[in-house]
Amino acid sequence: MDLKSRIDTAVREAIRLGQDGAAPAKLAAALEYATTPGGARIRPTILVSVAMACGDDAPGVTDAAAAALELMHCASLVHDDLPCFDDADTRRGKPSVHRAFSEPLAVLAGDSLIMLAFEMLARSAVHDPMRSAQLVLTLARQSGMPGGICAGQGWESEEKIDMRAYHRSKTGALFVAATQMGAAAAGQDPEPWAELGDRIGEAFQVADDLRDAVFDEATLGKPVGQDDRHGRPNAVAELGIEGATQRYHDILSGAIASIPSCPGEAMLAQMVNMQARKLTPATAASRA
Amino acid sequence: MDLKSRIDTAVREAIRLGQDGAAPAKLAAALEYATTPGGARIRPTILVSVAMACGDDAPGVTDAAAAALELMHCASLVHDDLPCFDDADTRRGKPSVHRAFSEPLAVLAGDSLIMLAFEMLARSAVHDPMRSAQLVLTLARQSGMPGGICAGQGWESEEKIDMRAYHRSKTGALFVAATQMGAAAAGQDPEPWAELGDRIGEAFQVADDLRDAVFDEATLGKPVGQDDRHGRPNAVAELGIEGATQRYHDILSGAIASIPSCPGEAMLAQMVNMQARKLTPATAASRA
Repeated sequence: MDLKSRIDTAVREAIRLGQDGAAPAKLAAALEYATTPGGARIRPTILVSVAMACGDDAPGVTDAAAAALELMHCASLVHDDLPCFDDADTRRGKPSVHRAFSEPLAVLAGDSLIMLAFEMLARSAVHDPMRSAQLVLTLARQSGMPGGICAGQGWESEEKIDMRAYHRSKTGALFVAATQMGAAAAGQDPEPWAELGDRIGEAFQVADDLRDAVFDEATLGKPVGQDDRHGRPNAVAELGIEGATQRYHDILSGAIASIPSCPGEAMLAQMVNMQARKLTPATAASRA
Repeated sequence: MDLKSRIDTAVREAIRLGQDGAAPAKLAAALEYATTPGGARIRPTILVSVAMACGDDAPGVTDAAAAALELMHCASLVHDDLPCFDDADTRRGKPSVHRAFSEPLAVLAGDSLIMLAFEMLARSAVHDPMRSAQLVLTLARQSGMPGGICAGQGWESEEKIDMRAYHRSKTGALFVAATQMGAAAAGQDPEPWAELGDRIGEAFQVADDLRDAVFDEATLGKPVGQDDRHGRPNAVAELGIEGATQRYHDILSGAIASIPSCPGEAMLAQMVNMQARKLTPATAASRA
């Protein structure tokens, strides 16, 4: 099974768990709507790639971790799109969850996806309870307070923003979760893997700023110019398109250099490069 | 340390974890606001009582479980109070979180409390990883879809409500979590403890209906008549105050009869009775 099918299968199985038995039909449908068809599934792709680079000796644990991370990411998108945050009408080229269903169902779908993420990780304890606990710990920390994606979103309610903490938690946290959970799923110490996730997160943020600046709404499938509208910081505004593109490539080189020694180190470096090419807008890449 | 202090200490320690380091200040404050001063802390009180009845041989695990369950309950209150659900201005006699802070911070506070709940359980793996995993599994299932509190709230978006599933998930789920997590924290099989939680949940729902019917807003510290306004089912509307009071006492007898055999069985029966007296409105009790 290729990487994409492996991840999609794991996500689908998790959603089916949440729809089992006498579930309320609309919320059950909203769970599926919020997770399919997926976006690039970039976070679980990184997670599984790191696990494979570390030997992937408990594939059931890796699958659970990949599904959990993607569900958490989808939950954050559903909540971020809510009227009280980005008030986004569209996401991935279709109406956002609160537009397609309702605001109550969007809040509940996000909450339910979070619960399902942790349920998947708890279920993986049949393979290895210590790895399961490590995965729960990592996902919870990178998702909540004081340094996870909730904290990142929380910074937007402050008058004075700690820019480093803001970027690291808002965008970086789930990439750190990706590399650390990949290592943990394969029984490795997650700590040395934080830097790789951190740098991929930085690169992703810059790529996002570049896409926002270069593409129009139709291509992106979501409203553009959100950063400007909310007064958020932006690498393109700071450095211009060429400067931001240069920074993007510098960060990626650092990311690859930071990969801890492991059996699949070379393969992993290749994967990071490949994912990076997918992220860079063609126009920006050609200017670099 | 008495039960209440033990629980309050565990909750406070969990919140402090979420406020550590460079956390955004308002969201950090919202976490504390949403959890202190606590309400009756009835769910973690049941949890710790069950754990003690089962021997409480890993008190660190029990404390983590109690904090996690209370955090999850508080998260559900914060989200339930949001404008798109109950639109409640007050909770526990003070402004609801979205009124005191903002709607974005209320959504994020709820999300962050959920993450912290699972983080606490993951941290308890240093004592016993299998118990930790069992606790994560139980809390996730009783909180999410298809049968947890998210599902319960989700039923309110359906045209045709499965009343049994609605009540069981909306109110009962976290009581089932309380008894099952108490047993799991003490290393016992959680399954036989589901019925006790289920019956306490039923009793609680009827007591809530009675309080809503008997008390005024000032006494309750939250708007009354919410059930009627949203067309939700109600034991008092169905049976009258005396009938509902009789049902309340019948359910409690069943609850006590269902307690699985364990060293602290008699003590636990006493605790259930004591908690029950706290719940029944005096006027309703005097009519029984």
